[in-house]
Amino acid sequence: MNLSSIKTVSVNRLGGGPERADAVAVEEPLEIRVGGRGVAVTMRTPGHDRELAAGFLLTEGVVRAAAELLDVYACRDLPHGQEGNVVEAVLSPEARARFDPARLTRHVFTASSCGLCGKATIDAVACVLPPLAAAGAASEAGLFAAAALGSWPERLRAAQPGFDATGGLHAAARFTVRGELVAVREDVGRHNALDKLLGAALWAGETPLADAGVLVSGRLSFELVQKCWAAGVPLLAGIGAPSSLAVELATAAGMTLVGFLRADRANVYAGAERLNCTK
Amino acid sequence: MNLSSIKTVSVNRLGGGPERADAVAVEEPLEIRVGGRGVAVTMRTPGHDRELAAGFLLTEGVVRAAAELLDVYACRDLPHGQEGNVVEAVLSPEARARFDPARLTRHVFTASSCGLCGKATIDAVACVLPPLAAAGAASEAGLFAAAALGSWPERLRAAQPGFDATGGLHAAARFTVRGELVAVREDVGRHNALDKLLGAALWAGETPLADAGVLVSGRLSFELVQKCWAAGVPLLAGIGAPSSLAVELATAAGMTLVGFLRADRANVYAGAERLNCTK
Repeated sequence: MNLSSIKTVSVNRLGGGPERADAVAVEEPLEIRVGGRGVAVTMRTPGHDRELAAGFLLTEGVVRAAAELLDVYACRDLPHGQEGNVVEAVLSPEARARFDPARLTRHVFTASSCGLCGKATIDAVACVLPPLAAAGAASEAGLFAAAALGSWPERLRAAQPGFDATGGLHAAARFTVRGELVAVREDVGRHNALDKLLGAALWAGETPLADAGVLVSGRLSFELVQKCWAAGVPLLAGIGAPSSLAVELATAAGMTLVGFLRADRANVYAGAERLNCTK
Repeated sequence: MNLSSIKTVSVNRLGGGPERADAVAVEEPLEIRVGGRGVAVTMRTPGHDRELAAGFLLTEGVVRAAAELLDVYACRDLPHGQEGNVVEAVLSPEARARFDPARLTRHVFTASSCGLCGKATIDAVACVLPPLAAAGAASEAGLFAAAALGSWPERLRAAQPGFDATGGLHAAARFTVRGELVAVREDVGRHNALDKLLGAALWAGETPLADAGVLVSGRLSFELVQKCWAAGVPLLAGIGAPSSLAVELATAAGMTLVGFLRADRANVYAGAERLNCTK
């Protein structure tokens, strides 16, 4: 697991200047095994691989809580070149008994096992995942201050060393309902960045993340909403646009979905009742 | 296949203004079947589904030329809601005999069947795909004018009606070596936009695309390089950054890889010999 996340290559520059060194984000395959059997391969940026595996297993529904994931370790005695690119996940007996590799091995993403229309896809996810707690169920303390959301993009950006070096890494950040930045993870893959972030929370015993808001550096797809729902996250925001199915799934989940988040404006596509617009 | 690619939803705006209608890019599953068996499901924006299936089959190596893909048609008599979301591909006897669904059904992307380290992944792709023609093998006429590349991003942007409406669609464009814009395709998925573009070329009998340059609206990953290589494209450019494995695969392919393409500058990560910098 000592692979580096950034690599230097030589580039020719058009528009001026000599050949020079340039940092690029590393992309390497990671295989996740359960019981010695590969269940997923993802192209990821090395680093936080235990978190990535944990987040993947959580957000694909293989484990539902920290107690169901006993360990994730790097496999040894691999063929040359594969060192660090294979991890084994040890599930609890309950999770192991429930685990159906056929649901995962067909495709990595959940949608494939969810029917072939958007509505059926949403229904299938809704059957599996418990509903999120209603907005402000407890008190106003459970609401996100709308005005404070505007600071999130800048704070995410300031916490992306890999992007600074390469311009080529997606990121996901976790904030509390009070606006504190808790964690940031980066990866060449947008889903991987989110899996790492949510997997870190799983390892810390913090899931479901009932008071968390998540910001992603890109667009809002169905899969990202589904992953946040699986981790119990009530608010997902993105710098970019949502897809139609992302909006529909967030609505079904009772999740707040914020797109085009900027310092001074944003679009709220679902769950506006979780935002406190008075402060 | 009459699903629309854009949908209107209602949004609350933070930072001023009343609730209003907003267009989002549609995201719906598409299943691709071969011989009645589903071999892939992708979350895509409806439209150009025949091209998407053709491009997927070409760039995953299932078909190697237009003559190996006899037809792609929309399946009928589907359960309610799935209409338009399932297509059947009819392969030639040769392609059918060679087809190994196990290579695809494990994961959609090729990397999974290519070993578990970057080097092995590249070797596996290089074993399957023929090398690209050397740069300028014929004459200077086969070189891309470096200065002309700078106009590509603006011309791609001007040909993205879906992005204009939603801000949420990736795009891929094909240019000739002389800089003519041939085609543009959009999709919520970056791989799908490229598959649609390359699939259109397959249907037109134009593959391998030996004199084409492709520009993608985002970043340059391993998979995008692999797809272009499978279609014989000698130059791939992106608005964003490449990953390490994208640079390595382009180098192995003899492909020209251009990142951070802007009007007045760009970084050339591989294959600079295919660019004519004198004009």
